[in-house]
Amino acid sequence: MTSPIASINVIGLGLIGSSIIHAVKKYIPEIRITGFDTNSESIAYAKARGMLHHAPPTMAEAARRSDITIICTPLGTYDEIAREILPHMPKGAILTDVGSVKGSVIQTVTPLLTLNPDIVFIPGHPIAGTERSGVMAGFAELFENRSVIFTPESDVPADALEKLSAFWTKLGAKIEIMDATRHDLIFAIVSHLPHLIAYNIVGTAAHLEKVTESEVIRFSASGFRDFTRLAASDPTVWRDVFLHNREAVIEILGRFTEDLFDLQRAIRYSEGDKLFDLFTRTRKIRKEIIEAGQDTDKPNFGRNA
Amino acid sequence: MTSPIASINVIGLGLIGSSIIHAVKKYIPEIRITGFDTNSESIAYAKARGMLHHAPPTMAEAARRSDITIICTPLGTYDEIAREILPHMPKGAILTDVGSVKGSVIQTVTPLLTLNPDIVFIPGHPIAGTERSGVMAGFAELFENRSVIFTPESDVPADALEKLSAFWTKLGAKIEIMDATRHDLIFAIVSHLPHLIAYNIVGTAAHLEKVTESEVIRFSASGFRDFTRLAASDPTVWRDVFLHNREAVIEILGRFTEDLFDLQRAIRYSEGDKLFDLFTRTRKIRKEIIEAGQDTDKPNFGRNA
Repeated sequence: MTSPIASINVIGLGLIGSSIIHAVKKYIPEIRITGFDTNSESIAYAKARGMLHHAPPTMAEAARRSDITIICTPLGTYDEIAREILPHMPKGAILTDVGSVKGSVIQTVTPLLTLNPDIVFIPGHPIAGTERSGVMAGFAELFENRSVIFTPESDVPADALEKLSAFWTKLGAKIEIMDATRHDLIFAIVSHLPHLIAYNIVGTAAHLEKVTESEVIRFSASGFRDFTRLAASDPTVWRDVFLHNREAVIEILGRFTEDLFDLQRAIRYSEGDKLFDLFTRTRKIRKEIIEAGQDTDKPNFGRNA
Repeated sequence: MTSPIASINVIGLGLIGSSIIHAVKKYIPEIRITGFDTNSESIAYAKARGMLHHAPPTMAEAARRSDITIICTPLGTYDEIAREILPHMPKGAILTDVGSVKGSVIQTVTPLLTLNPDIVFIPGHPIAGTERSGVMAGFAELFENRSVIFTPESDVPADALEKLSAFWTKLGAKIEIMDATRHDLIFAIVSHLPHLIAYNIVGTAAHLEKVTESEVIRFSASGFRDFTRLAASDPTVWRDVFLHNREAVIEILGRFTEDLFDLQRAIRYSEGDKLFDLFTRTRKIRKEIIEAGQDTDKPNFGRNA
């Protein structure tokens, strides 16, 4: 039996960081919460709403007093943050994160663990979010019935993993353990590619000088608007996701483009059966997603209801 | 002042056709409704629910007794339907449709108007729908506050256009007149490309043997599921849309692919600023769509709410 967590430190009060804080306050109110953000307005907002017990002026100080430090910032900031906080984390503390890419996080942080051999590093990724961002976007229920994936190295002590699992479980999440490389491939498919395609199609439509932006917006309910949700996601977070999962994203993008050319060719040469077969298969996937409880079965996501 | 419509004939009892019937029954109950479908189960369903006043055994007979005939079938069926019904339509009757492509419809139907010079042909396109299909998917409110676009030839009598406009207005729609070529370009961008991309990405993900379909489904809430809605749309309808708007779709697809390669290159060479700039622009489009009342502003389309 490991001792439970008494204090956490959340670095980065964005959608995920602030949701963790709200969830801890709701489900594990005995935990002491420290927060840090380079944006002083985010800190002021969180303090004003009673979200934080401590808001020290430096990351080092924030890390010094906490059983867990959770990095909730864009992937491009990890190197600097790890260098700054690692020497100050107490013996037995856990360093974890919420980044959407795990291989690059391990590559960045693992060599820095020599700065403090007494802490445990467990890379994590809660599969939860919305297209909103910032400290005002967070809410306590974000992780309910969502998966949190850990991609620990083999030398991570079982009791630390157990402690971190217990923490996330109390926030409503289900724990999964996965290899980092596999994680990055799966999320290149189910998350990174969809976001990239959404950003791209919205960009293409906005640039077509043959059609005005107002027409695109006015008739967007005929399909386009579905893509604009993902394309409204945080620019910094997603820039870093693509740069940090480059190989897997480019590989999956290659498959996507290959399939798209095949489809374009079928349209050009009027291969109706080929189109029909694909469109029938994809319909089945939607059905499976709904049956698995991963989406609403209401038409138009319930928007017209 | 033109005489109002006393009777309509709906050919094809799918999502749109059955929604027109429900809307007419709700908003213009004095209109006599005739329906035809090659699927006898759809007719039986509609009759059992009191949706139809008449359900004659042939299209010709259905057309013979109606002030308006509305073709609500996939685009590939228009030639056969027009040939069969035109000779039987009464003098002064209006032939219209709900197809998502207008140029090919005009090319198909206009030469056949010699079969009956006493009727008026007004191509139409209600900008409304869901991913559902079939007679059970229809509902009366589908056209509320939605646009219906007409792409009439210049020789269409004003009173016929007025009559058809009054009909759709009573169903809750707003009327727009547009050139057919421009219509087909706009909808290639806002509707046909998004559907094609959605079908393609769902197909790509389902085919990746490196990742199981169950993983794709389990983690679909991280982005992928947004695409599966459009990719669940009716396979026959959409096969025909792509085959009938081939030139515009291939042109817009070319732009999309060009932009995508540009984005892929930015990822490959770590051009973070380029990614950030695009992601910031696309976020603005989402904001405009919400401000224009074209989508919900709830996170995750309100699914998590």
